[in-house]
Amino acid sequence: MEFTVQQIADLLQGTIEGDSNAKVSTLAKIEEARQGALAFLSNAKYEPFLYTTQASAIIVSDKLELKKPVAPTLIRVADPYTSFSVLLQYYQTALLASKTGVEEPCFIGTGSQIGSGHYRGAFSYIGNNCKIGENVRIFPQVYIGDNVQIGANTTIFAGAKLYTNTVVGSHCTIHAGAVLGSDGFGFAPQPDGSYKAIPQIGNVLLEDHVSIGANTTIDCATMGSTIIRRGSKIDNLVQIAHNVEIGTDTVIAAQAGISGSTKIGNQCVIAGQVGIVGHISIADKTTVGAQSGVSKSVKESGTIIQGSPAFDYKQNLRAMTVFRKLPELQRELENLKDKS
Amino acid sequence: MEFTVQQIADLLQGTIEGDSNAKVSTLAKIEEARQGALAFLSNAKYEPFLYTTQASAIIVSDKLELKKPVAPTLIRVADPYTSFSVLLQYYQTALLASKTGVEEPCFIGTGSQIGSGHYRGAFSYIGNNCKIGENVRIFPQVYIGDNVQIGANTTIFAGAKLYTNTVVGSHCTIHAGAVLGSDGFGFAPQPDGSYKAIPQIGNVLLEDHVSIGANTTIDCATMGSTIIRRGSKIDNLVQIAHNVEIGTDTVIAAQAGISGSTKIGNQCVIAGQVGIVGHISIADKTTVGAQSGVSKSVKESGTIIQGSPAFDYKQNLRAMTVFRKLPELQRELENLKDKS
Amino acid sequence: MEFTVQQIADLLQGTIEGDSNAKVSTLAKIEEARQGALAFLSNAKYEPFLYTTQASAIIVSDKLELKKPVAPTLIRVADPYTSFSVLLQYYQTALLASKTGVEEPCFIGTGSQIGSGHYRGAFSYIGNNCKIGENVRIFPQVYIGDNVQIGANTTIFAGAKLYTNTVVGSHCTIHAGAVLGSDGFGFAPQPDGSYKAIPQIGNVLLEDHVSIGANTTIDCATMGSTIIRRGSKIDNLVQIAHNVEIGTDTVIAAQAGISGSTKIGNQCVIAGQVGIVGHISIADKTTVGAQSGVSKSVKESGTIIQGSPAFDYKQNLRAMTVFRKLPELQRELENLKDKS
Repeated sequence: MEFTVQQIADLLQGTIEGDSNAKVSTLAKIEEARQGALAFLSNAKYEPFLYTTQASAIIVSDKLELKKPVAPTLIRVADPYTSFSVLLQYYQTALLASKTGVEEPCFIGTGSQIGSGHYRGAFSYIGNNCKIGENVRIFPQVYIGDNVQIGANTTIFAGAKLYTNTVVGSHCTIHAGAVLGSDGFGFAPQPDGSYKAIPQIGNVLLEDHVSIGANTTIDCATMGSTIIRRGSKIDNLVQIAHNVEIGTDTVIAAQAGISGSTKIGNQCVIAGQVGIVGHISIADKTTVGAQSGVSKSVKESGTIIQGSPAFDYKQNLRAMTVFRKLPELQRELENLKDKS
Repeated sequence: MEFTVQQIADLLQGTIEGDSNAKVSTLAKIEEARQGALAFLSNAKYEPFLYTTQASAIIVSDKLELKKPVAPTLIRVADPYTSFSVLLQYYQTALLASKTGVEEPCFIGTGSQIGSGHYRGAFSYIGNNCKIGENVRIFPQVYIGDNVQIGANTTIFAGAKLYTNTVVGSHCTIHAGAVLGSDGFGFAPQPDGSYKAIPQIGNVLLEDHVSIGANTTIDCATMGSTIIRRGSKIDNLVQIAHNVEIGTDTVIAAQAGISGSTKIGNQCVIAGQVGIVGHISIADKTTVGAQSGVSKSVKESGTIIQGSPAFDYKQNLRAMTVFRKLPELQRELENLKDKS
Repeated sequence: MEFTVQQIADLLQGTIEGDSNAKVSTLAKIEEARQGALAFLSNAKYEPFLYTTQASAIIVSDKLELKKPVAPTLIRVADPYTSFSVLLQYYQTALLASKTGVEEPCFIGTGSQIGSGHYRGAFSYIGNNCKIGENVRIFPQVYIGDNVQIGANTTIFAGAKLYTNTVVGSHCTIHAGAVLGSDGFGFAPQPDGSYKAIPQIGNVLLEDHVSIGANTTIDCATMGSTIIRRGSKIDNLVQIAHNVEIGTDTVIAAQAGISGSTKIGNQCVIAGQVGIVGHISIADKTTVGAQSGVSKSVKESGTIIQGSPAFDYKQNLRAMTVFRKLPELQRELENLKDKS
């Protein structure tokens, strides 16, 4: 996609200084931009790059006073950061919107309905009796089992797998390789030391505006649903076990794991590589620091915890400071013992 | 699937109280059940739900004495929990059994044999010279390389990948996205600081009744086999490196990682996010607590360890209790120093 | 593949003792080898196996003096380990080289070019305007989005997913299920507590001789590139976030995670399950011990750190030694307080 600076300026209702016919084909940071790129200057700290950048055009503030001549064409707007964000959004939307229609071969079972405006990539699979809304994009090699429901404007990237009975809301994004609805890890020990699988007949339910990262796994419930509520964002390689419930607008970073039947509140922030045991509750607006292990319920909203096992993060920080000096403490204690 | 309460009662040899023509189409917990659901009451703690549930039918004990009138139809049996488990098992088996035959297109190389009663989903791939037993279910987009052997009654869910020479026993379950037989992570450092890959020509071998979770990765052996023995259950996103051996009936929870050439005994329990270094042995019936890092062999059967690095879990618990109070300890030590 | 010992000896320029017509079809360790296998003896510690092994042939040193009669045919060479490595390399190369041509059905978009000598497995997908070099092997069910570039002699195993605009160098290996180019985890908090996705329009760039493990995820940059430089080796289930840069010849073990915009130097060793926070720099030749959490930049080349949070590994080791004795220390402190 190539545009003239004039076209961009028209879109942003900006004013051009320089060659309005300059062509741009990509967006870049001002410090990395090459010829053909459009960048922006918002933070004064980056102004020196304005006079050295190879970008073909830069979005700058109406109020910016140039200290030297500049090579790129300028587009002056009220708020460069917001204008640039608008372009980023256009760019990504255009990229996705270019995917429409059906690529062959793809597979669709009996009794399944798909809304208009959808994309189905080659080698994608849709089972029987599925209901799929409008403008849904199903990338190549996606697997959708039987009786799956998907709301409008949801995008499922290449190779994601949705087991039978999964329910996905509208405006969701599911990244490549994510697995929704695999069996919960439930095994009953037998008298001879072996294990027998407990049947897992529930499903996974994502509400609207949920995002699931690449190769993340979400197990189905034993019965009922494993639920991710509206607006929550799950990063890559996260494990969410059977019968877990994640509240609204909660963020879970990469490689975290939530064990079975645990309930996470609304607007929580769970950092990377955190582990949370099963059958507990985490209050709304809880923050759990990276690599923490949460072994008991968090009852008070707004709690911040850290450590494995996790406790109050300030207390943990202080304990960690002393931990480093433990050999010294031990020596001092020995000295006191000798003296006493 | 819809059944009358009469059909269910006949199956369970139970006695009906209420409308034997009531219809049920799903199984649910008594506290979550809606119309059309069949639930059970086993634990007296849940009896209050019996009088408020919207379930269409409830399995209860022969001996239960009602304290109020109940809306759902009752099926009285000797042991409600066992009867309900039987139904769960029926339900899951029926779900899988509905998958038979071959969906097109799918790919099969030359010289491969497949037993009767199998299912092969669309876009599944079977290489050359494979031997696949009876009643094997291969879901869509599964990849099976050359010379792979798979025993009877094994199920491989969508998109799992089995590299060339993998051997899988009978009655195994491999969940979506699992990878068996990727190259072991073996690189020989060169004088110039670069690395050269050490060829990995071994395979992965699963014995019977093994379960592998979604997106779990098991590397092939450098030579010989990476082995998971009979009855072991591996959760999602677990990493098992080259030449590892896992004993019989061992359970490994999500996101744990076992490094190269380590041997895990029989009937061990490895909790979530545990890391185990390479080239060590873990005795039978060892329990490793969540997020632990195991850096040396465990020699005594029945050992329980915790921590990173891991040691006796009771000792770890006590040390952790003091860890939280370290700032206080430091202050007390300073006080004593001032006095002395 | 079956060979006579004579054929192997000719290849290695070795001398035969025993039956030169003995046939071998696989390579094995001397302590595990069965009939039909070729093994080697390099380390004197393993010499007892020479007299008991079931291997059909053994590569031994020119200088080895036999203490007893041996059953297998011997191939005498100057350096048995090197000769065996040569065979391993041949074996693996032959295995890959057997994959050529195009299996149907596979999908290729418009404007894409592919070099000669390539393999494309069934159900593989190549989007529009891709440039793919010579001798590239694309296994079944691989997804390659639009505008992707792949250098010569690269192998992409089954089901790996390369999003649009990904750039891969030559002589790279990408294992099954790896995802390159998924959206970075960037969400802007809104006044109502919800999150809005920040468009991620950058890409992933692998230089030459890079290896990516099974089910590893590498996010695209917000703008610009997430970069893995020449010769770096990434293990299974690793998470690499948006705008990360990994230097040359760096090794990252399984289940490690690198957060957004962090820069890792050349020839670093990052052990398993390590977490590294975002927006920091790690100096060349840094070693990070397993399960460590790195929370700040490492400035000095050759640093070795351990712990969560990580600091000097020797200091950490000493602190950990005292940690185990904390209950004892606490008691001693109490005793001193009582006395004082």
